[in-house]
Amino acid sequence: MIATGPLQGMRDFLPLEVRQRDFLMTAFKAVYERYGFEPIETPLLERLDVLLGKGGDENEKLIFKALKRGAALERALEAKEELADAGLRFDLTVPLARYYMEHRAELPRPFRRYHMGPVFRADRPGRGRFREFYQCDVDIIGVSEVSAEVEVLLATTGALDAVGFSGFSVRLNDRRLLKAVLGHLGVAEEHQASAVVALDKLDKIGLEGVSKELQERGLAADVAEKLKLLDAPGIGELPAAQGLELLKTRLGLAHEEPALIALGRIISELSEVRGEAVAISIEPLLARGMGYYTGPIFEVGVEGVPFSLAGGGRYDGLVERFGKESVPAVGFSIGFERIALLMSERGAFPADLARVDAYVTVFSAEDRGYSLKLAESLRKAGLRVVTSLRAGGLKHQLKEASERGARYAIIAGPDERARGEVQLKNLATGEASQVKEGDVGSCLQVD
Amino acid sequence: MIATGPLQGMRDFLPLEVRQRDFLMTAFKAVYERYGFEPIETPLLERLDVLLGKGGDENEKLIFKALKRGAALERALEAKEELADAGLRFDLTVPLARYYMEHRAELPRPFRRYHMGPVFRADRPGRGRFREFYQCDVDIIGVSEVSAEVEVLLATTGALDAVGFSGFSVRLNDRRLLKAVLGHLGVAEEHQASAVVALDKLDKIGLEGVSKELQERGLAADVAEKLKLLDAPGIGELPAAQGLELLKTRLGLAHEEPALIALGRIISELSEVRGEAVAISIEPLLARGMGYYTGPIFEVGVEGVPFSLAGGGRYDGLVERFGKESVPAVGFSIGFERIALLMSERGAFPADLARVDAYVTVFSAEDRGYSLKLAESLRKAGLRVVTSLRAGGLKHQLKEASERGARYAIIAGPDERARGEVQLKNLATGEASQVKEGDVGSCLQVD
Repeated sequence: MIATGPLQGMRDFLPLEVRQRDFLMTAFKAVYERYGFEPIETPLLERLDVLLGKGGDENEKLIFKALKRGAALERALEAKEELADAGLRFDLTVPLARYYMEHRAELPRPFRRYHMGPVFRADRPGRGRFREFYQCDVDIIGVSEVSAEVEVLLATTGALDAVGFSGFSVRLNDRRLLKAVLGHLGVAEEHQASAVVALDKLDKIGLEGVSKELQERGLAADVAEKLKLLDAPGIGELPAAQGLELLKTRLGLAHEEPALIALGRIISELSEVRGEAVAISIEPLLARGMGYYTGPIFEVGVEGVPFSLAGGGRYDGLVERFGKESVPAVGFSIGFERIALLMSERGAFPADLARVDAYVTVFSAEDRGYSLKLAESLRKAGLRVVTSLRAGGLKHQLKEASERGARYAIIAGPDERARGEVQLKNLATGEASQVKEGDVGSCLQVD
Repeated sequence: MIATGPLQGMRDFLPLEVRQRDFLMTAFKAVYERYGFEPIETPLLERLDVLLGKGGDENEKLIFKALKRGAALERALEAKEELADAGLRFDLTVPLARYYMEHRAELPRPFRRYHMGPVFRADRPGRGRFREFYQCDVDIIGVSEVSAEVEVLLATTGALDAVGFSGFSVRLNDRRLLKAVLGHLGVAEEHQASAVVALDKLDKIGLEGVSKELQERGLAADVAEKLKLLDAPGIGELPAAQGLELLKTRLGLAHEEPALIALGRIISELSEVRGEAVAISIEPLLARGMGYYTGPIFEVGVEGVPFSLAGGGRYDGLVERFGKESVPAVGFSIGFERIALLMSERGAFPADLARVDAYVTVFSAEDRGYSLKLAESLRKAGLRVVTSLRAGGLKHQLKEASERGARYAIIAGPDERARGEVQLKNLATGEASQVKEGDVGSCLQVD
């Protein structure tokens, strides 16, 4: 017998889960469209040089690679060369960069895009961590001003607001400041990329864990105290403008430092538009995992949830990988899987996503046509109608109607049909009433 | 420089194309929900034994395989074993069979499901034939009566009707009749599977081509005349009930032949429900490609289009691959890519899918907050609003507004703001009017 489970770290979704995920995506799309973002699609598979860049990448081990086929595979095996030439995308940002360079003549500039879809990572699976999962991104290409950062922050908090979240916190940092921080910790320039990866685990392993990892990797010694100084007495707990000022002082930065100006503008514009609805803070140790960020980075959380729901930043260098032109870019990714799980645990999805308005019974094989025509007329009125696929055996049919959660069962025996009526049975209350055939639709609508 | 095109046979989609595809999927989903079908999702990657069955399959060469990783790859290379253990799904039916056996305790029976998503085939790409493309399926699991066939035929023609198609033709056959036909042609039992593959090319290569291929493959000799006898004087041109009767006579079948009874019932029920809206015919040479069909098979076309828009059939044996239980099943797949292309060529998609209601200009850097707040209030009213990401340079901003196809530009200089007004500029007519700030939303809605 062939095993019936999905691959390790991947998931099947039951109908209700699909409807809930679909509800989320539909809501997010509607918001992004209201902000003028436009949808794109790219293939699930990309060439490996697209995914990794010319020089390879730390993401290589995360990639599910597609085996070469036929003669190309034979040649590769013989010559002991790379056995794969393509792989499944591990995010939506790298494909966007390729896409933008390929299609830029047909796209508006600035280009605001959203993209939702599956990505793949051959990570060790764990609770809430999957090998195939959805990402849900907004990006703006072609704008070097922080108006782009503010726009993606507004759209993302707008999307979260639309599905019922509130009490937003925006945590800000800048990769340029992070470099200064790492310099302050004594991490040499060439080790800073690795140090960012270690810092990115702060939420999971804490300050002690990060400083231990930095030391074990030989990136910096005795950093625990210095890290604490940056973190406490809590730059992150201060109102953002004050936090920024304090960080500037601690790092001894000049007032005209571009990262300080950028963050200052993000803080003031976002506060002006959203006021009290968004609490902004500066987090000098916020790192974000991906190597491609170059400027402001940010995460959004909500009250009462101990992890961030969205994260992003500026990545001005990435698009250049695919062309000579330098193209600034900012992106923001909503943690789709986290949010779906959170809303499911909270019972926050609408209750009627799987609604069935009516179950139409079939009295006998000869009456099937009558029942099907009745069902068709109700569907034309926009109702969701299940018809019985067996004829006769009313008890069994009503059981199916209940299992499917139908609001009403419609029963039409020879007596009812002779009078041009049907019996309408409310499956929640058990009440039954006789209704003229032509009135069934409006009876179901009114409820 | 890294090349920026997608992989061969795969596609990037521009924003308008995504919106059109999304429009189609949303319309199909709404219809399927009205018929009581429920959505599922399965991973893009499946184990190879799931995709191929125990004994391998003619589909093996179509599969994009995922390379093993790490130690497993080393071992496979050393032992010269299979280098892949998973592959990208090539249809949505095989994953459904696995899914059903895995989750059947949590699913209603009968289980009506719809599923839309990408599938992958390492075919030679050509016009309208891609290596990654969408399928859009409805299936009913657990029903051996032809009420299931009728139901998927109603849902599928209903879905096509919802996006503007009419004048439906339903072409019917049955794999059991096809066996009798092949026997009649002198094709031995063990060659019938290959003969079906050859017959499936009838639309592309014609009767002559098929009979040539059957002879070249050594499956049957001198079949051209016999094929013509089955096809002409046109069983397919007769009303379906008469066509079925004629086929019965030509093949010398008994009246109680199950395939004849099944097709007869499909014809009578579908005619009763849909009447003149659907023209039904019997096509004794209709084959359908996939090996898993066991009973009635069918295709749906529309007037004026020379290829079918949807196809399906009964596959009672497939689910058994994943369990001891025998589970009957019927499925229908809409040719999503064909339909998207056809509707695009016909200009049949709604014109306002990329609608932008307003473009809010930004007078100067200091006015950004004002403009953003105005935009936010319009979005709260459900309008689609693009804000300028640059401050000042009104001419450039209005150019962007036009490029994005915005209906209106909103301009608020110091004079307007002092009066609590904005200038509303209709970008189609060039007309401008002064409007109270609080009235902008309703002005844009009314239009």
